[in-house]
Amino acid sequence: MAVKYKAPIKDIIFGLDVIDSYNVLNRVDRFKDFSKEVSIPAIEECGKFAEEVLAPINSIGDTHGATIEDGIVKMPPGFKEAYEKFKYAGWASISLPNEIGGGGMPNTLSGATLEMLCSANMAFVLGPGLSIGAISALNFHGSQEQKDKYLPKLVSGDWSGTMNLSEPQSGSDLNNLTTKAVLQEDGTYKITGTKIWIGSGEHDLTDNIIHLVLARIEGAPEGTKGISMFIIPKYLVNDDDSLGNQNNVRCLSIEEKMGIHGSPTCVMEYTNSTGYLIGEENRGLNYMFTTINEARIRAGGHGLSCATGALQGAVQYSLDRVQGRPVGMSKEDAKNSTIIDHADVRRMLMTIKAYTDAMRYMLYDNQMMLDLSYYADGDLKDFGTGRCGLLTPITKSWISDLSVELTSIAIQVYGGMGYVEETGIAQYFRDARIAPIYAGTNGIQALDLVFRKMPFDKGKVVEKLFVDFRTTAEKLSEIKDLEYLGDILNIHTDKLNKVTKKVNLDLLNGDVQNVSASATPYIKMFGQVLGGYYMAKAAILANKMQEVTNEEYYLNKVTISKFYISQLLPLASGYISSSIADSKELFSIKSENI
Amino acid sequence: MAVKYKAPIKDIIFGLDVIDSYNVLNRVDRFKDFSKEVSIPAIEECGKFAEEVLAPINSIGDTHGATIEDGIVKMPPGFKEAYEKFKYAGWASISLPNEIGGGGMPNTLSGATLEMLCSANMAFVLGPGLSIGAISALNFHGSQEQKDKYLPKLVSGDWSGTMNLSEPQSGSDLNNLTTKAVLQEDGTYKITGTKIWIGSGEHDLTDNIIHLVLARIEGAPEGTKGISMFIIPKYLVNDDDSLGNQNNVRCLSIEEKMGIHGSPTCVMEYTNSTGYLIGEENRGLNYMFTTINEARIRAGGHGLSCATGALQGAVQYSLDRVQGRPVGMSKEDAKNSTIIDHADVRRMLMTIKAYTDAMRYMLYDNQMMLDLSYYADGDLKDFGTGRCGLLTPITKSWISDLSVELTSIAIQVYGGMGYVEETGIAQYFRDARIAPIYAGTNGIQALDLVFRKMPFDKGKVVEKLFVDFRTTAEKLSEIKDLEYLGDILNIHTDKLNKVTKKVNLDLLNGDVQNVSASATPYIKMFGQVLGGYYMAKAAILANKMQEVTNEEYYLNKVTISKFYISQLLPLASGYISSSIADSKELFSIKSENI
Repeated sequence: MAVKYKAPIKDIIFGLDVIDSYNVLNRVDRFKDFSKEVSIPAIEECGKFAEEVLAPINSIGDTHGATIEDGIVKMPPGFKEAYEKFKYAGWASISLPNEIGGGGMPNTLSGATLEMLCSANMAFVLGPGLSIGAISALNFHGSQEQKDKYLPKLVSGDWSGTMNLSEPQSGSDLNNLTTKAVLQEDGTYKITGTKIWIGSGEHDLTDNIIHLVLARIEGAPEGTKGISMFIIPKYLVNDDDSLGNQNNVRCLSIEEKMGIHGSPTCVMEYTNSTGYLIGEENRGLNYMFTTINEARIRAGGHGLSCATGALQGAVQYSLDRVQGRPVGMSKEDAKNSTIIDHADVRRMLMTIKAYTDAMRYMLYDNQMMLDLSYYADGDLKDFGTGRCGLLTPITKSWISDLSVELTSIAIQVYGGMGYVEETGIAQYFRDARIAPIYAGTNGIQALDLVFRKMPFDKGKVVEKLFVDFRTTAEKLSEIKDLEYLGDILNIHTDKLNKVTKKVNLDLLNGDVQNVSASATPYIKMFGQVLGGYYMAKAAILANKMQEVTNEEYYLNKVTISKFYISQLLPLASGYISSSIADSKELFSIKSENI
Repeated sequence: MAVKYKAPIKDIIFGLDVIDSYNVLNRVDRFKDFSKEVSIPAIEECGKFAEEVLAPINSIGDTHGATIEDGIVKMPPGFKEAYEKFKYAGWASISLPNEIGGGGMPNTLSGATLEMLCSANMAFVLGPGLSIGAISALNFHGSQEQKDKYLPKLVSGDWSGTMNLSEPQSGSDLNNLTTKAVLQEDGTYKITGTKIWIGSGEHDLTDNIIHLVLARIEGAPEGTKGISMFIIPKYLVNDDDSLGNQNNVRCLSIEEKMGIHGSPTCVMEYTNSTGYLIGEENRGLNYMFTTINEARIRAGGHGLSCATGALQGAVQYSLDRVQGRPVGMSKEDAKNSTIIDHADVRRMLMTIKAYTDAMRYMLYDNQMMLDLSYYADGDLKDFGTGRCGLLTPITKSWISDLSVELTSIAIQVYGGMGYVEETGIAQYFRDARIAPIYAGTNGIQALDLVFRKMPFDKGKVVEKLFVDFRTTAEKLSEIKDLEYLGDILNIHTDKLNKVTKKVNLDLLNGDVQNVSASATPYIKMFGQVLGGYYMAKAAILANKMQEVTNEEYYLNKVTISKFYISQLLPLASGYISSSIADSKELFSIKSENI
């Protein structure tokens, strides 16, 4: 009865083609040999790993959860064994640079592998994901000595890394961060403070845990300009790279959460813990932000993964479950029919399917832009940086919000069985609910879009994207029988463009209240149209492939694009009124009277 | 930190005025003395009960849950004591007819009391809700002897009742129901079969449990026309009304669900259990359907209750939580500011607030139409019957779907704290998720709307409702500064009317595939516009009340209506394309390839 995860290899390979990944990435020196010959075996291998090693312990992680006793956190049964295999196979470091021992693959590809790993077992993958963040920050900003000391074992997965930002009084807003760092005579610091929401802050998978911790050095400026970043290892590392004394670092408790039970979310207490400054004083927040795009794209990826897993469960269940005679079907035909023949069930499945396809293309493209922003040169780098910045808040928020909705639809396909935990479908829904919250809540993403990303390069980054929408719509309109899809995309690009102008006008007029009030409906509308753009690209490619190969698979992809563009994209229109509304009504009722 | 429930008395009283409940119900003989003087004290008393008795054990019910050992089900700590008070206060039977010992109040009022009880503790209230269903069925269709024997103790709450429809192979579709009834020489039946999804099928709150069970008498016709309804008491009742032998009825297990942990969902095994036929043979399904409207409206009510409870939590949290400087606010002002001053948080709160108001009016009106359908005469009864039938699937599905979305928004207001269970906000989300499933999945509601309710009285029931939309829009347009709201309602009535015509045309042409394929987006669109109608009525009343009383409360109600009509109602437009789409795309991909 449990959901049996099957990696959607063909969809993933197709997704990398929709964004034209090989041609684009080959323009980057580092990736000039990146090709299908390289990527497909990796995808297939990773799919097998996800299916065989991670998926079988997904529900164990959920029902057993991580546990804590006297500050010692035990991971769920089977996690340690799976982690050893995971480490050995090198999935965590596939896209880390060769220079530090990584696989040297583009993030575009690791986005694809992450999708599978995370669909199979999201809670398992969260810890290694946080390590990547720590590795990137260290690699960008650590001293050579620090890199030599910590990176090899972090990259190999022998050690893990964490990111420590939030404190009880200081979550989204780090201005009030109080963790204190005191310089010692030997150049190290003694660090004291309590950190919350620390994913995998303590666990029994690795020999050491390297905490990257934001703290305020005595006498530092107030606010975010006085925050520095420190390395605080669980075990101090001797000069010969052996493990030394245990540092004064303690996991006080782990949160009892609605989902991702297999991932311990820790409250960490640092008491005069020995720490090492990374880079310069008071630059901690900048350093943290270096890796923020990665983290946010990854959170979007979690949304895609939950939705994909849930889709598979819903399809499996509805192919199996016999119930009722579909409207219009003869009694005779109905004898061999399952609920997948009901129009309403098909609508639910097609909705999840179409959205997950759109989410996948969007996410892969965002990852590819991240690669360009990191590794390309000149104009291409600038283009990647701008586009990556623009896409990231949309990818993160649109996909993670949708994921909650889509996993909920999957539950609905199961009917009553969806509400009982034994089928496993409810886990996707509970796991998915975290993604709109972490890596910056979706409200913060919306503000990031309107206040930081839209004004970027005087609005040209947005304009260029809209040009791409129109070019794609035109290409689509040149294809027989698909003309109307191009028209629909064009109509909605017009609408989005109009709303964008209104937001820009408010920005220009300094009416920041209005801008912030409309940010959420605006980003939802943007996401819906952006999804349409990718589905249009998919339709164009699939149509061509179908002509060449005559494969039903590509015909189906055209159908799915039709469904998205004609039935889901138009939901964007519903957000126009709230995107251009005045903020007045939001504030005219006294707070305590709401 | 836990959510502190405070019954929204004033909103509830206002809600009863929005639907003009006293004037309408006074036209029914039975309710001619129903007045504010009667209803307000009941509402206040019930609110107190909900706050003081039920709310404090809500989270205990969730964390402890009902447990089973050897077929014996124990309710969570505190439930038994609360049930005794509940029974004594008579909340369960407030709207049952006086003739059978009930409170004789309209369902309209019990809708209001149910809202509070259920916001305070949904899991607790589910059991007594099922008893009401059993009482209604018995009262409508039982023999006088059966009524005399079972009703008094069911109505008093000394015993409880259940409804047994589903079997493992037979959930939404009862055609394949296999539970077997064999007539005995003494006129009783021996009944054998397994029933699933039996809410409160076994528990320790009452002395006896009266199961109403659907079964097939030996030799009965196939399909739903061969189903009869039986009384199967847990303990047989002697002629002197004392309890006799235990019947052969066993609770095999209780489901481990995502939410409503305080409500045991039982698998019941009947093995040659003694049962008594209700009414005539083979009429069981008709009897069950007598009370289906009640059950469905109640399920909508559960959605409202969860959303209202979650709103209160979100408001409390955001009035308390200090984080970040709201966009555009000075540093000085921001010192006394909490997250409720952030535009995006206010949008979330106003969204929940506006929807819960619309849901409340819709639900109360539906309950009032139920009262008319039961107790009015002549044209008024016909009107009530038609309108109640039309509203019920919309109320049930629109409200329960929205409730999942709104409780999710409430979690988002809490940020990370929303995802940890200790704040209690996640419970509303998990509890709410059942309502779109039970009492007929929301997909079934959509089919009920298009295939059964729309054709009712040749479509005149729908037409009459649209006339009411327009009349209300016109009235609104006559109010200074609110003209534009009337326009928006009119525009969306036009759109809904146009889509309705398309659905009717498909019905006329017998294109049932198309009708069933568009049923879900259509009902969503309908709900959104129907909500606008009620918010328009609320604006008209609040505007008048504000002129008379000069109370800020009514000014706020006008603002909330403005927000709904100008920012949420337009979401209806997004569903037009999918409501009128051809069903082709849903079916052109082979099932196994989705």
